[in-house]
Amino acid sequence: MVEVKKKLETLGEDVLKDIEASKNPDIDIPVRSLSNVVWNEKAKMLTLGNKIAKRYLFNVGQAKSFMQTLLMGAFCKELQEQGIHTSLRDAFYALKRTLPNSDENTFDEQTESDPIIVDLEVALDLLREQLHLAADVRGRCVGNVIIKDRGDIVDFSKLGSGGWAIPSVVEEIEFKKVDANYILVIEKNALFERLHQDKFWKKHNAILITSQGQAARGVRRLIQRLSSEFKLPVFVCTDADSYGWYIYSVIKYGSISLSYISERLGCPNAKFLGLTITDIDNFKLQNFTIKAKEVDIKRAQEMLKYEWFKSKEWQRELKLMIERKIKAELEALSGRGLRFVTETYLPTKIKNEDFLD
Amino acid sequence: MVEVKKKLETLGEDVLKDIEASKNPDIDIPVRSLSNVVWNEKAKMLTLGNKIAKRYLFNVGQAKSFMQTLLMGAFCKELQEQGIHTSLRDAFYALKRTLPNSDENTFDEQTESDPIIVDLEVALDLLREQLHLAADVRGRCVGNVIIKDRGDIVDFSKLGSGGWAIPSVVEEIEFKKVDANYILVIEKNALFERLHQDKFWKKHNAILITSQGQAARGVRRLIQRLSSEFKLPVFVCTDADSYGWYIYSVIKYGSISLSYISERLGCPNAKFLGLTITDIDNFKLQNFTIKAKEVDIKRAQEMLKYEWFKSKEWQRELKLMIERKIKAELEALSGRGLRFVTETYLPTKIKNEDFLD
Repeated sequence: MVEVKKKLETLGEDVLKDIEASKNPDIDIPVRSLSNVVWNEKAKMLTLGNKIAKRYLFNVGQAKSFMQTLLMGAFCKELQEQGIHTSLRDAFYALKRTLPNSDENTFDEQTESDPIIVDLEVALDLLREQLHLAADVRGRCVGNVIIKDRGDIVDFSKLGSGGWAIPSVVEEIEFKKVDANYILVIEKNALFERLHQDKFWKKHNAILITSQGQAARGVRRLIQRLSSEFKLPVFVCTDADSYGWYIYSVIKYGSISLSYISERLGCPNAKFLGLTITDIDNFKLQNFTIKAKEVDIKRAQEMLKYEWFKSKEWQRELKLMIERKIKAELEALSGRGLRFVTETYLPTKIKNEDFLD
Repeated sequence: MVEVKKKLETLGEDVLKDIEASKNPDIDIPVRSLSNVVWNEKAKMLTLGNKIAKRYLFNVGQAKSFMQTLLMGAFCKELQEQGIHTSLRDAFYALKRTLPNSDENTFDEQTESDPIIVDLEVALDLLREQLHLAADVRGRCVGNVIIKDRGDIVDFSKLGSGGWAIPSVVEEIEFKKVDANYILVIEKNALFERLHQDKFWKKHNAILITSQGQAARGVRRLIQRLSSEFKLPVFVCTDADSYGWYIYSVIKYGSISLSYISERLGCPNAKFLGLTITDIDNFKLQNFTIKAKEVDIKRAQEMLKYEWFKSKEWQRELKLMIERKIKAELEALSGRGLRFVTETYLPTKIKNEDFLD
């Protein structure tokens, strides 16, 4: 954490130097708009390009955001010094005040303070979690993993039916023991509970994680750390619909809005092990499909054009969905029996290496 | 669980007896509409009245739901026998099929199967969790609690920053050790993480639970079991707005739509320890309030009329909100410093017994 504090201090010191040299103080902020988001074919990730904007103190249009950036920087430095973590919303309230002798607020709404936090992340090349700021929190984990966290030794294989609630910040977790063949990420908690109850992770020596929908940053970072630090393959299991497939792609490649941190959160080796349109035929799920909505089809048509869905297999699945206008949920597998997913579907797909990349 | 299986078998046997006696088979289903929801002043709970409707096999309007009720009953019996838990959505898929030589489906949509599950809960006086069916899942817990769950011993005081992910079904959890002065239920995860990091639960010997919004059934049942089995006071801490106060009232009294299980999920001894409009003055939060929306005001006006908000103190708070047209979030306390909530706000309110009932 010394590095984080150092970076925040340097930010302030650079401004001081400008002032002492009678220069107009400025801060370099990499541009985050779509024009500067690039698909990095080699790294297989959505990353930020090289465009940088300067933010000046003496500039009518920039003075306020300049002040806000320094306020937030000072706040983050205080979080480091006091060893406190907090949420984006709390940060907004902690910094919100009316400037003396004016009607001007430091921040009027959280929609003003959130982007400033992202500015700091990008400018300092730090995760907001490293700045001790956290967003929403979801996700659960079980498996043969033992961690040390805030002095506690937690064994993910001995948490009963509940599992470990993944916190928003997993930076400081120390892995004491990780014994697994792969990580299986599941979109829906219901399937996670099914697999957990059927002891799937014990039988297959897997780490089970449910993202409970779109993966929160804590979940993405946990997957990434486990995968990269222990060289574990990652399989992602979602519904057969555009939304589910997009959840997979965000875990793997990152997202457009968070492209500046793909390297810290992305998992380029992740493979898709969830429901496909082809599975509907292969596993006799025809009676359990759902009619795709207009919005699903439109989304699939957009995804056809994404560089990261250009593989033959994905193009085929997306086209099949558009053509047949159907989708299917993981729960559809229960149409073949409640343990079909544990005993037949997943083992068959894993055995045949029936993954999409 | 023998009791559950017995009740399901009795349901089927009674139908068989009717058939053998050449009677039109029927099932008694208590009425769940608003007309049969009553405020039980003595028990301080929303409960179901005595109205019962009969569902007949030989009745054109009822034959399908009669069939569905028996299908679901048989499915639940199978869940008991196989020791499987599943979700409402999986149950729908598991039972969905087209009847032979017809175009008729057993269930077309989950909106048909969900009410049948509730019918069974009410008719058999069982929780869906006892029927091995679970809905959504949210919520986390830390504190001096040791449980036995599926053979694992889990110590809620040694789970690092994460806490225990509360599962949807907590019926079969065995409490091995519970050492606490009270249970503190927090609406928002951000405050839960703040209190957890500040070791509030250790200092005050409390069990901390976050409901992450409206409390899921697993969370409500966990609170109720801990509170009733160990005679622990329950304090609920939410935002100062109609939505937050309603979360509190559901934990305490139950809800209209789930009035048939208030006795199993309600916590009549729960007290409100969260933000009030009065707190805004008492704790100098005037700069951190939010303008109440039309919908907040309307909701507060409705709540003024509820029997369970008739205390002088609640009437005062609701009227203050309507009059001043403001609300406040828990995060507003961060305006007074990030540890204000841990070091000043909560200890002061607890010391002064500044609760609403």
